[in-house]
Amino acid sequence: MQEMTSDVDSPELAQLYQDFRDHDLAPLWTQREDLQPLTPSPAAVPHVWRWTRLLDIAERSGRLVPVGRGGERRAIGLVNPGLPGTGYATPTLWAAIQYLGGHETAPEHRHSQNAFRFVVEGEGVWTVVNGDPVAMRRGDLLLTPGWHFHGHHNDTDRPMAWLDGLDIPFAAKTDVGFFEYGSDRVTDEASPSVSRAERLWAHPGLRPVSVLDDSNSSPLTAYRWEHTDAALTEQLLLEDEGQPATVEQGHAAVRYSNPTTGGDVMPTIRCEFHRLRDGARTRARQEVGSSVWQVFDGAGHVTLDGVDHAVTKGDLFVVPSWISWSLSARTSFDLFRFSDAPVIERLGFARTLIEGVSR
Amino acid sequence: MQEMTSDVDSPELAQLYQDFRDHDLAPLWTQREDLQPLTPSPAAVPHVWRWTRLLDIAERSGRLVPVGRGGERRAIGLVNPGLPGTGYATPTLWAAIQYLGGHETAPEHRHSQNAFRFVVEGEGVWTVVNGDPVAMRRGDLLLTPGWHFHGHHNDTDRPMAWLDGLDIPFAAKTDVGFFEYGSDRVTDEASPSVSRAERLWAHPGLRPVSVLDDSNSSPLTAYRWEHTDAALTEQLLLEDEGQPATVEQGHAAVRYSNPTTGGDVMPTIRCEFHRLRDGARTRARQEVGSSVWQVFDGAGHVTLDGVDHAVTKGDLFVVPSWISWSLSARTSFDLFRFSDAPVIERLGFARTLIEGVSR
Amino acid sequence: MQEMTSDVDSPELAQLYQDFRDHDLAPLWTQREDLQPLTPSPAAVPHVWRWTRLLDIAERSGRLVPVGRGGERRAIGLVNPGLPGTGYATPTLWAAIQYLGGHETAPEHRHSQNAFRFVVEGEGVWTVVNGDPVAMRRGDLLLTPGWHFHGHHNDTDRPMAWLDGLDIPFAAKTDVGFFEYGSDRVTDEASPSVSRAERLWAHPGLRPVSVLDDSNSSPLTAYRWEHTDAALTEQLLLEDEGQPATVEQGHAAVRYSNPTTGGDVMPTIRCEFHRLRDGARTRARQEVGSSVWQVFDGAGHVTLDGVDHAVTKGDLFVVPSWISWSLSARTSFDLFRFSDAPVIERLGFARTLIEGVSR
Amino acid sequence: MQEMTSDVDSPELAQLYQDFRDHDLAPLWTQREDLQPLTPSPAAVPHVWRWTRLLDIAERSGRLVPVGRGGERRAIGLVNPGLPGTGYATPTLWAAIQYLGGHETAPEHRHSQNAFRFVVEGEGVWTVVNGDPVAMRRGDLLLTPGWHFHGHHNDTDRPMAWLDGLDIPFAAKTDVGFFEYGSDRVTDEASPSVSRAERLWAHPGLRPVSVLDDSNSSPLTAYRWEHTDAALTEQLLLEDEGQPATVEQGHAAVRYSNPTTGGDVMPTIRCEFHRLRDGARTRARQEVGSSVWQVFDGAGHVTLDGVDHAVTKGDLFVVPSWISWSLSARTSFDLFRFSDAPVIERLGFARTLIEGVSR
Repeated sequence: MQEMTSDVDSPELAQLYQDFRDHDLAPLWTQREDLQPLTPSPAAVPHVWRWTRLLDIAERSGRLVPVGRGGERRAIGLVNPGLPGTGYATPTLWAAIQYLGGHETAPEHRHSQNAFRFVVEGEGVWTVVNGDPVAMRRGDLLLTPGWHFHGHHNDTDRPMAWLDGLDIPFAAKTDVGFFEYGSDRVTDEASPSVSRAERLWAHPGLRPVSVLDDSNSSPLTAYRWEHTDAALTEQLLLEDEGQPATVEQGHAAVRYSNPTTGGDVMPTIRCEFHRLRDGARTRARQEVGSSVWQVFDGAGHVTLDGVDHAVTKGDLFVVPSWISWSLSARTSFDLFRFSDAPVIERLGFARTLIEGVSR
Repeated sequence: MQEMTSDVDSPELAQLYQDFRDHDLAPLWTQREDLQPLTPSPAAVPHVWRWTRLLDIAERSGRLVPVGRGGERRAIGLVNPGLPGTGYATPTLWAAIQYLGGHETAPEHRHSQNAFRFVVEGEGVWTVVNGDPVAMRRGDLLLTPGWHFHGHHNDTDRPMAWLDGLDIPFAAKTDVGFFEYGSDRVTDEASPSVSRAERLWAHPGLRPVSVLDDSNSSPLTAYRWEHTDAALTEQLLLEDEGQPATVEQGHAAVRYSNPTTGGDVMPTIRCEFHRLRDGARTRARQEVGSSVWQVFDGAGHVTLDGVDHAVTKGDLFVVPSWISWSLSARTSFDLFRFSDAPVIERLGFARTLIEGVSR
Repeated sequence: MQEMTSDVDSPELAQLYQDFRDHDLAPLWTQREDLQPLTPSPAAVPHVWRWTRLLDIAERSGRLVPVGRGGERRAIGLVNPGLPGTGYATPTLWAAIQYLGGHETAPEHRHSQNAFRFVVEGEGVWTVVNGDPVAMRRGDLLLTPGWHFHGHHNDTDRPMAWLDGLDIPFAAKTDVGFFEYGSDRVTDEASPSVSRAERLWAHPGLRPVSVLDDSNSSPLTAYRWEHTDAALTEQLLLEDEGQPATVEQGHAAVRYSNPTTGGDVMPTIRCEFHRLRDGARTRARQEVGSSVWQVFDGAGHVTLDGVDHAVTKGDLFVVPSWISWSLSARTSFDLFRFSDAPVIERLGFARTLIEGVSR
Repeated sequence: MQEMTSDVDSPELAQLYQDFRDHDLAPLWTQREDLQPLTPSPAAVPHVWRWTRLLDIAERSGRLVPVGRGGERRAIGLVNPGLPGTGYATPTLWAAIQYLGGHETAPEHRHSQNAFRFVVEGEGVWTVVNGDPVAMRRGDLLLTPGWHFHGHHNDTDRPMAWLDGLDIPFAAKTDVGFFEYGSDRVTDEASPSVSRAERLWAHPGLRPVSVLDDSNSSPLTAYRWEHTDAALTEQLLLEDEGQPATVEQGHAAVRYSNPTTGGDVMPTIRCEFHRLRDGARTRARQEVGSSVWQVFDGAGHVTLDGVDHAVTKGDLFVVPSWISWSLSARTSFDLFRFSDAPVIERLGFARTLIEGVSR
């Protein structure tokens, strides 16, 4: 705070500060600027992780560390360098590479935390969600919303690795998490190419009359690459035809949505897929809330807080709150993104600043 | 009302009733039982129209009556026998067979009334919705929500007929309708197999990030038969596997929905498609609100207020409010349905009574 | 429709039109302009009823017509001169003067129709709503939402008359109404000055934690004059202080609301109270949907579709859809209003045109 | 995790763990039980702060520490003993005693964080919210929702102290906060007994027609003690009459609500007031999410995680997530409570376990 009216060395003042400490108190005036910065001032920093490095470490973990009850998953979390010791990719989001060897099984459990898998390469694992086996293939987004039992099993003799995303940090910070162990094996070892959830729900604009209640998480637990790719392709073709369809010139994007509400797939996590044409560049954006991106295909650059990073297939990067980001494409450039935007929006904290656009 | 305490022939009472009439008044006690019946007592009656008959009359209209500005559409409305002189199929819904000869055009206009087309047979016409040409093919549902410009043009030399559904009676009774003439020709005479609306929106669970506002009518203006058929097929297969998916044994059904909200396709009209297995029978249901059905394929019976009617491809029937209905299938039996359920539900009047199920 | 290509007198055409009639069909092209006018074209007309006249007729009804089971209420409905034979004030709203003599009782019943009472003068009657006696006094709005049991009893030896408003026409036209008889006497003959509903709910911004579910009708079944008057007084004082508070210069207004949602008091009926300063005049407005007004106090003019009417305490007038209305005050001028605006808005048909304001 | 298949001392494994650290990674299997406990396992602990102690320290701060620009407020935050060094009362909530000497002013500013004041004793300070002076008196709840400018000024020569509550920890952890300095003096030094916000909004069930948009924070920025007290008094009287009104026997409670939605007063903070009859005891409850309570009047006990604490006027205590709490009253016992329940509920994490009630 501003200058004290009494001498800072006065015994009375020293006693006062001692009493704060002794009685579980803290004066606002010494903390105010930290607690209430002029703009979001995340401890988290922008950072890039290389897929080749992650994959190497995951493969070695596969050889050296078993998967099973207790640890539950052979998942290796990205630790934001600004949040050392936490295991958090951003203040609200957890992101990991999970690795499952041939014929291995990660046992079933359920938890309050919302989770998804995104597959940048490979196939052969089935995630069993409340008893429904869901195939995992390149480009697919698979959901395991809060309190759904889920396990994974590899039906092949080849290993598979993928991206896990959860709201673990958010749940930990707000003390909302419950956890329950389930079956040591997955409860259905079948390996269908299409899940029951998709058979009921993956028909555009159609709902089963047998399930009319809305749910706060999507009942469609698998979003397949063929649909995502088709939607993005069409947006760019429509742009070619002079129709409004893309976010900005050369930048197509879809948001994965809950067909019962049209809203986000889970209450705390937004998932999107972005595609840039070769040579395209996005405006720089600052957004309240944090996100994690993974390059799915192609190559390009991401500029984070003014620093340029070349990224390619599988590379991951995080964008903390209010950090400026933009993308530019050296080839056709595909990226998956997840963020805490539903939290930010539902609680009234959303703001966006777009380069060259008045707020 | 009950017996009068004064002599009904008293001059004072006679004068009183005369004064009601002279001063634009009406006593409740003489009307109460009509105005407030114990259960819904529709003037509309259950009725069946035969497709072969409709088609014959439509074809003759095609030869004898031009289509063009003023009349706007060569549409022949079903008139409920309980509502003579109105042109209404039910108290809230209008239903018609529309017929367009080879290379004919129905001019563009827009109106507050919400409308759709459902195609029981044929193809070759494009409905142009706000400039977007939408192909019409067997089994498709096409929307023209309120205040969207739309016209139709037949790109072939063969005539085509289809079902039109609107909320014309509801709009007329509540005095909400505006109407505006548009282009005499359709504004885009292209004949793409897929509309721009579908290219943006017909990807299961995916929304374009460029269009994030929700709309009270579906932006997906075409629901294709291949998706409807696949969804119904899967429900019955899931039932075979012992999974919950159908409305009741042997009865699959989908509701067409607005992908921005998960709700009905338009604020006043619900659209559904029902499929019964050969031999299946639905429970009898009574519902507040009225609906119109069209047999799409197969043959079976509908029982309306206890009266059995054999129906086959193209036949239409109406179910007034609180009239008991049930279906039974002699073959695989497919039916399209539309109703005023969104009105009933949004305004808090919904009730359903299902045979053998306690309320 | 436009000119026919074939001779209108052709036998084929005559047969076609005969077949329309014989087969319960009606061509759109002969009805289109009636069914879909360019702007709302209500059959209902603007009209004024004089309170002194209504009261005289109600008093004579009180002497000549008993109240009791069957007729249920001694209520005399306003019949719109444009809707003869219906008993409807507007296409969707029913409005009546109800009259109860000293110590008379109107028996309990319930119905799907939503209802309210508004008291322009007098007191002494209690409306018992689901067993809760609600005093009726000048300036009060009392609700009996759909399917709430209610009866009235006069606890004094003086008669009382008031305004009843219901959605009877809307319910009749959509066939949604159920009705059930209740007790011949009111189930609680106590005469408390404050109802239990008010004791739970009439505390500004406070909800009982014991009742957290939202309801589609207001649980606050009595809105007292003292609060309405205070709210309007404050709006005009704030206007005097240069603060935004009034609808327009000299025109204060409150909307009665459901404290569980902030929305309208009932799903089909909006209730408002308007106060004009002496000399004030409102802009002319055209709105989709119809409303009924009652002058509560003071004197002024209403201009309906360009025709000026002097109105004073108790006088009622109706404004059909899209009819221009404006008010001007010769004294401080208080008016109660109810309308079908919730129907119009929930179903997406709302439009307003305000004099001098671009749409 | 379970036993490793390779020797834990193997060089390969040691290298793997070293690589995790070197490449900003952390394996889930060593953290999983901490990150995902079986039930919420807050670091925050239940704790009681004594009002007499807080007041003594606040008064000494008043003598020794000026208030003004930079520190902004002479507010002394409760530090949860389980969250040392943070200044947080719970993981999501900040709570403080704020103290303003005679004729002092705390300058205006605004911030994304939502805030309120609750007054346990005293009067004489006005909080100016977006230019509207709001008197603060015993028992009042005053809101300063996110991004509303606000300052405080003491219009008397006597000091005043009160409770401040904010979502500072939540905002800090999710990096959502913006802050802007405003006027060094309050922008309106008037001292009206009633604010403009109350004059517009504090009329039960009535909304100004001039402000029809809903807002995610309550526009009613002052909730007066007289209304809270009356609501609680009525609940207990209704209970005496055998009517449903209280949460449980002898336990009345109100929730402060947003009159435009019926929901919580601010998107992240719920405020309630509870009253127990002399001798009453609540069931023990466990709830997801944390809360802070302040005794407003009377004396009683709170049992937190099985430990009993006698508490009296002004004492504050915190209840971390899933910690069992119950209250018992030695006199009539009044308590104010605020919590993060809106966050928990909006994001789908709510659970409650009530003693003797099946979930």
